[in-house]
Amino acid sequence: MTKTVENLAKKSLSLIQPYVPGKPIELLFKEKGIPRIIKLASNENPLGASPLALKAIKKKISKINRYPEGSASALREKLASFLNVNSSQIIVGSGSSEIISMAIQAFCEPEDEIIFPEPSFIIYRILAHAFGLSPTAVNLNDDFSYNIESFVNKISKRTKMVILCNPNNPTGSHITKNQLKRLMNNIPDSVIILSDEAYFEYVEDPEFGTAMDWLGKKNVIVTRTFSKIYGLAGLRIGYGIASKEIIRIMEKIRPPFNTTSLAQEAALAAIEDKEFVTKSILNNKIGKDYLTKGLENLGFRVFPTQANFIFCDSMYDVDRLNRKLEENGIIIRPMTGFRIKGNFMRITIGKPSENRLLIKTIKKIVDRWR
Amino acid sequence: MTKTVENLAKKSLSLIQPYVPGKPIELLFKEKGIPRIIKLASNENPLGASPLALKAIKKKISKINRYPEGSASALREKLASFLNVNSSQIIVGSGSSEIISMAIQAFCEPEDEIIFPEPSFIIYRILAHAFGLSPTAVNLNDDFSYNIESFVNKISKRTKMVILCNPNNPTGSHITKNQLKRLMNNIPDSVIILSDEAYFEYVEDPEFGTAMDWLGKKNVIVTRTFSKIYGLAGLRIGYGIASKEIIRIMEKIRPPFNTTSLAQEAALAAIEDKEFVTKSILNNKIGKDYLTKGLENLGFRVFPTQANFIFCDSMYDVDRLNRKLEENGIIIRPMTGFRIKGNFMRITIGKPSENRLLIKTIKKIVDRWR
Repeated sequence: MTKTVENLAKKSLSLIQPYVPGKPIELLFKEKGIPRIIKLASNENPLGASPLALKAIKKKISKINRYPEGSASALREKLASFLNVNSSQIIVGSGSSEIISMAIQAFCEPEDEIIFPEPSFIIYRILAHAFGLSPTAVNLNDDFSYNIESFVNKISKRTKMVILCNPNNPTGSHITKNQLKRLMNNIPDSVIILSDEAYFEYVEDPEFGTAMDWLGKKNVIVTRTFSKIYGLAGLRIGYGIASKEIIRIMEKIRPPFNTTSLAQEAALAAIEDKEFVTKSILNNKIGKDYLTKGLENLGFRVFPTQANFIFCDSMYDVDRLNRKLEENGIIIRPMTGFRIKGNFMRITIGKPSENRLLIKTIKKIVDRWR
Repeated sequence: MTKTVENLAKKSLSLIQPYVPGKPIELLFKEKGIPRIIKLASNENPLGASPLALKAIKKKISKINRYPEGSASALREKLASFLNVNSSQIIVGSGSSEIISMAIQAFCEPEDEIIFPEPSFIIYRILAHAFGLSPTAVNLNDDFSYNIESFVNKISKRTKMVILCNPNNPTGSHITKNQLKRLMNNIPDSVIILSDEAYFEYVEDPEFGTAMDWLGKKNVIVTRTFSKIYGLAGLRIGYGIASKEIIRIMEKIRPPFNTTSLAQEAALAAIEDKEFVTKSILNNKIGKDYLTKGLENLGFRVFPTQANFIFCDSMYDVDRLNRKLEENGIIIRPMTGFRIKGNFMRITIGKPSENRLLIKTIKKIVDRWR
């Protein structure tokens, strides 16, 4: 019986390399028994969750026997006024990754081509195979900046969707307004452009190009999330913004109850938590400068970032360095498995004390290797 | 630009009739301003959520800035010992409906045939269209009991999956051990059998046939949920049980963080809450007898149920009756939109006070129509 099961699986699944998430704190504790562990591996907010969100959840806990209001109408209304669009232009999902999945499922027929950057968020490629599509990766430049011409050149008659990751995970690089304009002007209207902007709140460059500017002009879907700056990663809630026609189509395949009632309440409150957002941006800016200098002083090559993480070439065997860091209770993300050759790693910007401990610990480790 | 969007959508989506959930209490309150509303529309646990689950959530709230442990390993371990299987045979999802969706996505190629009962849970048909499959409905008998021969007769070389809903939502009817045996013995090994057992904890008939008995004998997937008896509908958490080979394939397309950390904690605690489960079963049994008699006394045709809801033919215009009930602050589920002709309704069994109020209110309404 069981022998036949592998043959019953959808053919394209054999191409999937499973996603390897950042190691959870509990798992490292179980493995090594280290009492004090810091995690700088999953681009979570080191300051915790929005306090207003925490307060809102506590009030609603007793009602979790009721199904959520599936369309998240209150949250969509609030997001609409926050973003100055209509609530019919918003869809809510279990993290922005579910929005990306729904967009693909709603618009791509099997074997349609889908284009995305590489290295970038591994989920794009996984979703392409999960839906039986034809994935085409566009390489970033050698310095991991976006190469717009490469994107334009790859678009063909078979292309149904172009995914941008801006700022890009894991490299922190971004697309400017001018670059986005050049790209948009060269994409036919038969193509959906999905701009994954999970980290946009951390952007410092005023020339950053958000696809929000192209709503109503091109077939654009922008995805954003409460997982990062609002500190709600554990609750799984994100959103998509597009024309109401696009949203209406995506709503057809949205699972009826795709977000929890607690996540909706938390998100509603988090949007109002300007103090927490400001504090998080400031913490990120300070930490970015500190880590950049600290890592450069250690001889690492650090790439410019517009997000809440640092992408760098450690110049040492990154898996060995990672093992040593874990022994010292620090979890970062070696880029093994991210389709990048070399000794790259991604470090989430932490609290000042965490950043200091990281630099101190790396110094201690690599000093012995010199 | 926007004119072309409808043409860009995946073709099979045009066949989807959106799912209409039970009306949320907040919405009826908004519409009518009635202060005291009872909802008997979505098969939620009227006693609330498991108290142990509520306690567990409160402890973990402050950690929601961290991503969940995606594979839910602690919960899978606990479920495994609870069900006497291996944890590699379990997958956790955002409600059992996500397990069903993942099973379809993992095993069905476009245009594969998928067979399910009708009337039944509307999601099966929606998912078939969402994935571009060929849906084949098998009608229940006129008394809404399962017709096993019809299932067997419908299976063809194109059939990739057979979905059973047992006990069946919305009719409350069930498949017995003998019926299941007859079905299993006539299903080829090239077919995946998915048994949706969301309501199995409420079953009273000792002859009820769970597909758990066929693990390792056929290519079976059993789906169950924490939304019903454990009272965690708002948290979205369910699970699937199958051979480890089937689970390994499904894990390939499971979204990396598909359940929230709070839902995992709540479920872990809820499994231990035997007192709450016992209380819920007792409340259901008492309510079922009371409602059955009460509705029959009003002249309604009530069908036998093994679940936490009553399926009945109201004999009156059900939309009109529903409107009147809403005016009186009671939400039930008229079966308009469930692909059943007639005046059927589904009533979730409530607390004794809610059940009494329902019967009293229906009596008041229909007495005027006689």
